[in-house]
Amino acid sequence: MTTLVADAATRKSGKATTMKALVYHGPAKKTFEDHPLPKISAPTDAIVKVIKTTICGTDLHILKGDVPTCKPGRVLGHEGVGVVDSVGAGVTVFRPGDHVLISCISSCGRCEYCRKGMYSHCTTGGWILGNEIDGTQAEYVRIPHADTSLYRVPEGAEEDALVMLSDILPTGFECGVLNGKVQPGDTVAIVGSGPIGLAALLTAQFYSPAEVIMIDLDDNRLEVAKRFGATGAVNSKDGKAAEKVMKMTGGRGVDAAIEAVGVPATFELCEDIVAPGGTIANVGVHGVKADLHLERLWSHNIAITTRLVDTVTTPMLLKTVQSGKIDPKRLITHRFKFDKILDAYDTFGRAASTHALKVLIEA
Amino acid sequence: MTTLVADAATRKSGKATTMKALVYHGPAKKTFEDHPLPKISAPTDAIVKVIKTTICGTDLHILKGDVPTCKPGRVLGHEGVGVVDSVGAGVTVFRPGDHVLISCISSCGRCEYCRKGMYSHCTTGGWILGNEIDGTQAEYVRIPHADTSLYRVPEGAEEDALVMLSDILPTGFECGVLNGKVQPGDTVAIVGSGPIGLAALLTAQFYSPAEVIMIDLDDNRLEVAKRFGATGAVNSKDGKAAEKVMKMTGGRGVDAAIEAVGVPATFELCEDIVAPGGTIANVGVHGVKADLHLERLWSHNIAITTRLVDTVTTPMLLKTVQSGKIDPKRLITHRFKFDKILDAYDTFGRAASTHALKVLIEA
Amino acid sequence: MTTLVADAATRKSGKATTMKALVYHGPAKKTFEDHPLPKISAPTDAIVKVIKTTICGTDLHILKGDVPTCKPGRVLGHEGVGVVDSVGAGVTVFRPGDHVLISCISSCGRCEYCRKGMYSHCTTGGWILGNEIDGTQAEYVRIPHADTSLYRVPEGAEEDALVMLSDILPTGFECGVLNGKVQPGDTVAIVGSGPIGLAALLTAQFYSPAEVIMIDLDDNRLEVAKRFGATGAVNSKDGKAAEKVMKMTGGRGVDAAIEAVGVPATFELCEDIVAPGGTIANVGVHGVKADLHLERLWSHNIAITTRLVDTVTTPMLLKTVQSGKIDPKRLITHRFKFDKILDAYDTFGRAASTHALKVLIEA
Amino acid sequence: MTTLVADAATRKSGKATTMKALVYHGPAKKTFEDHPLPKISAPTDAIVKVIKTTICGTDLHILKGDVPTCKPGRVLGHEGVGVVDSVGAGVTVFRPGDHVLISCISSCGRCEYCRKGMYSHCTTGGWILGNEIDGTQAEYVRIPHADTSLYRVPEGAEEDALVMLSDILPTGFECGVLNGKVQPGDTVAIVGSGPIGLAALLTAQFYSPAEVIMIDLDDNRLEVAKRFGATGAVNSKDGKAAEKVMKMTGGRGVDAAIEAVGVPATFELCEDIVAPGGTIANVGVHGVKADLHLERLWSHNIAITTRLVDTVTTPMLLKTVQSGKIDPKRLITHRFKFDKILDAYDTFGRAASTHALKVLIEA
Repeated sequence: MTTLVADAATRKSGKATTMKALVYHGPAKKTFEDHPLPKISAPTDAIVKVIKTTICGTDLHILKGDVPTCKPGRVLGHEGVGVVDSVGAGVTVFRPGDHVLISCISSCGRCEYCRKGMYSHCTTGGWILGNEIDGTQAEYVRIPHADTSLYRVPEGAEEDALVMLSDILPTGFECGVLNGKVQPGDTVAIVGSGPIGLAALLTAQFYSPAEVIMIDLDDNRLEVAKRFGATGAVNSKDGKAAEKVMKMTGGRGVDAAIEAVGVPATFELCEDIVAPGGTIANVGVHGVKADLHLERLWSHNIAITTRLVDTVTTPMLLKTVQSGKIDPKRLITHRFKFDKILDAYDTFGRAASTHALKVLIEA
Repeated sequence: MTTLVADAATRKSGKATTMKALVYHGPAKKTFEDHPLPKISAPTDAIVKVIKTTICGTDLHILKGDVPTCKPGRVLGHEGVGVVDSVGAGVTVFRPGDHVLISCISSCGRCEYCRKGMYSHCTTGGWILGNEIDGTQAEYVRIPHADTSLYRVPEGAEEDALVMLSDILPTGFECGVLNGKVQPGDTVAIVGSGPIGLAALLTAQFYSPAEVIMIDLDDNRLEVAKRFGATGAVNSKDGKAAEKVMKMTGGRGVDAAIEAVGVPATFELCEDIVAPGGTIANVGVHGVKADLHLERLWSHNIAITTRLVDTVTTPMLLKTVQSGKIDPKRLITHRFKFDKILDAYDTFGRAASTHALKVLIEA
Repeated sequence: MTTLVADAATRKSGKATTMKALVYHGPAKKTFEDHPLPKISAPTDAIVKVIKTTICGTDLHILKGDVPTCKPGRVLGHEGVGVVDSVGAGVTVFRPGDHVLISCISSCGRCEYCRKGMYSHCTTGGWILGNEIDGTQAEYVRIPHADTSLYRVPEGAEEDALVMLSDILPTGFECGVLNGKVQPGDTVAIVGSGPIGLAALLTAQFYSPAEVIMIDLDDNRLEVAKRFGATGAVNSKDGKAAEKVMKMTGGRGVDAAIEAVGVPATFELCEDIVAPGGTIANVGVHGVKADLHLERLWSHNIAITTRLVDTVTTPMLLKTVQSGKIDPKRLITHRFKFDKILDAYDTFGRAASTHALKVLIEA
Repeated sequence: MTTLVADAATRKSGKATTMKALVYHGPAKKTFEDHPLPKISAPTDAIVKVIKTTICGTDLHILKGDVPTCKPGRVLGHEGVGVVDSVGAGVTVFRPGDHVLISCISSCGRCEYCRKGMYSHCTTGGWILGNEIDGTQAEYVRIPHADTSLYRVPEGAEEDALVMLSDILPTGFECGVLNGKVQPGDTVAIVGSGPIGLAALLTAQFYSPAEVIMIDLDDNRLEVAKRFGATGAVNSKDGKAAEKVMKMTGGRGVDAAIEAVGVPATFELCEDIVAPGGTIANVGVHGVKADLHLERLWSHNIAITTRLVDTVTTPMLLKTVQSGKIDPKRLITHRFKFDKILDAYDTFGRAASTHALKVLIEA
């Protein structure tokens, strides 16, 4: 067979009924297999041909069996750029042929939460793609609430860069930087120098903080962080990260402590280094509770925030990319053709040795 | 001479060198005794003759030995209204004879924290009165940073009411209501219907929330709360408070959960009832850590705030009292003359049976 | 049967093709006449049977020829409560039989402005009802973008009161009170004590300002204002309103000056009475420019805001009405059956003598 | 003559009673002359030996007779860096020998306005330096409210750069950028590319706007603006600036229009180019009123702000300078020794031909 990818002409001829997709089959089981082509099932749906996609840390969580909402048989993936293939009768903003950025969050635009800008809690959307409905690691994907869940690719935009805007950049920005209220002259610490922590680092610089200290266990990732603009780097292996950060800040602590890992130790480290009046902005996905040291923090005038990304800043981020204020392509370390997606998973899954940040998967 | 209170004339004659005061002598030990009259020790000090004072739950904490910064020999008390007796050379705003509200927080007005409105963390002030320096449960008190720690009593104001503005009202308002971002139409829960919880209840109504649900173990306090404007009351004795609040809110939870107790169980109750997008505003003084259920809350888009009162809203609160938007006198349940302050402590300490909220102590 | 109102059964039988409506026929010309029944023309449309409507000052402006976007032949009216009669294929939130509040602003929920909460500037909506498309002073009305332009009437709600939520209450609240940043303890002046000024007065009280001073030329309206909660009233007939307000505020001026008239003199009065650090919140619809005294105001640290109502606060306002924090029915002074709508116009148009505020028109 | 500058030793010996100073003697009259040495007159005063100062556009306004509060006999100047020479008894933050930045705004830290961060309206301060009291264009200057009107020069800081923080940088930042609510991805126009407009340009970049369009009549200043980071430049000589900006923004207008000139035409240009939902942030000092086109703007949901700089962001700006986020020295085009201050005035006064931005005057 000469191509793994269903040809649009063939598809339009009505002959093709399947496509290739990366399918989850329960903990530790995934296959690259034939899967039924998605169909429009509501008037607000669009079918998008995926041009570029990527793998998220959350996909690895699913494969560990950590995400019970994601059932076997599901096509994974919630990031990507594509071309609109067809739209339902209720779609008014997009037309077949439009190049679009796919948001990881589906938003109906009508419910109480969407009207408040809290798309993550959309009553018929939120994070469903590659979780409760089939996702983007496929040749085609059905996007519900298309008018309010897709974004037009600006003329001349680099589509590689835009793949980073499906999830990772708005996540680092909204959950970390905006919730952390980063301001000019601030001192910021980001705990976790993986892709999400680095996305927070890149977008934190929109606000000209004086210092951004990255904390991680992996020296390579700390090196990357320095190239991306970190002013300080702390390897927390020795258990002395809090001590070091306090020393670096003259005993004062940081204005914003951004947690980008998702385990109790890293969250509690944030409690140790946040300055009076500061903020702990949680980005990490947590599986267990953490200790909140209210016996110390009750009088420190701090705020702790949590957030599932709303992608409400996607239009703003598109403008910053278009104007060159940020180059999200820097997060891409590896590239694979779509039919090598299992290799991409392997590379991404062994990030410590492969030094992978984001792997770009192209049709 | 029969009077217990030093006479100003005597004092000015230079003969009196002591006054009566309530002095802490270590855990569970307090006496009403003769104590040296305070003297101006810095140019920014004022000596204030105390007219009215009260007892705070924190004073009981000190007497339990819970506040290590407060050493034996200390005059207790950080609330009150008085008359300026004398001022240091650097005091420009107040003059002897001025009637003043004493703030529980001393603020220098010059340090980084004061300039940001975070008086609680003033580098030479904060909560020091009746803690690190002698307090207001005495005939006279030295007020450091007088120009920025006292507030002029407005013409015609009821001084009884103003005693509530030294601590309890700004605490409920700043730490609970402002941090909880209470808005018109909101649903609010306040956990703890003691004096601080009730102060939060009274000041929450500045913002016209649709519902304010009070939660407490004591039916009497819940009755008081209803008279003070609570729209719902939940006795949490049966351990089903969270369940009940969720039912009262149609399964949605509350926009603001205000914690006004200070133990893990009440804080964790707030975690159970806060709606997505809502806020937990901690007011309580905690002695031990609490469990933070990040495994559930990481994606709920919530904020948790802590705060030691800054009293930065004292001018605003004075205006609301003066214009009759709030009547803080409603918090006063008992009155004592100063020489009966030990009785006042007894009544306040047995609040469950005496139904005491705030006890007013008058010279 | 003599009824003027088309019966739903008849309509459904397909026999009725017209309804009664109040139609604009150019400056000073309006008729109550037969008009074609509206039809669904887009999948997102709903047809709503109007139960209650009212007349807005803007309708009088149209009749003066002041609104060039409104062409002869147009059914007027942009306020009302009704029952959904039929919906297009793309409508998912509402079903026939649902009681709904009609917003004066149509919002697509998808465009850049709607996504930012600036529904007034919706690229395919905004204020079009009874202006660029047929309005609510008819038996039936077509509502575009129904899912995001209608609001469900809460169970048990008084529909009379809700008619005030179509336009007047969100206008006074958003353009006046929210933009004016009214806070507890503030001093507020509202210039214009007509229906909009009174709506601002009612909703300003959500935030417990210390003083609300109403300014108008009509003593009756000032009397009404006092009953509605104004703490001061100034008749500006003598040209000394600024002088009086400055005296009432101890020479300081007001924190928020809300302009609810729409002529240069009233706007310039706001410039004269705004305190340093205060806000002028314009609500009035202006036909000509005003003088902005920057030679005085440049250093006063003020803000001036303008706004066409977005009705983004409709859900919040519904909650305040449902919880009894506000009673918008107080604005209704007269009631008419729909077939007497010309009388209603007459009464509303002669408000100075009839003392009309809002006239309720019922099917 | 060996030195024009009084020697500290001589001064301390008590022999010197005069110093050299630039003194205003009424419209168009200034001299460099002997002037009495300043003395501490209040316990909160400090005497500062001026090391570096500069000339502000406002000084030229004074010399035109435009500033009636500034009387003949006044030493001009409200910017500078110096060394504390002596302090009053009430000064606690600074000691003789401390290197300090002098704020153009004197702030008591105690009055209602200072407590709200509105130092510009301090009841005993505000802009008084070189206006109502003698200023910094002298060997020594008396600084009232020294503890809250001086800022410590950070270790290792470039004092040349810091002179820009006395006035010009906080003015551009607070009145222009902060009031203009500049956000990542925004489109900003700055009308006026003089020192203040350029200060706004430099500090706007703290927030990563996508576009900053500078508008001026002088091509040289527009060239400078481009070097300083402007993405577009419009020479408004031909009267078509509005047209051009609208074209550059796709007909939408700008999110923030910053007025940095102070005449009606430039303010009205801002009215023409502000996008719906945008802000006009006035920085310019105006001598006459402007036309406010409410007939167009009433429905555009805009804000207009005015502000006399509060210098409340000085600590933040110091951090951005120290961390290299901004280099204010770029604004310095010429340098003079103090005894050549008349030459400095000449150069600064003929900026069109000398291309002067800020002239640094050094002791």
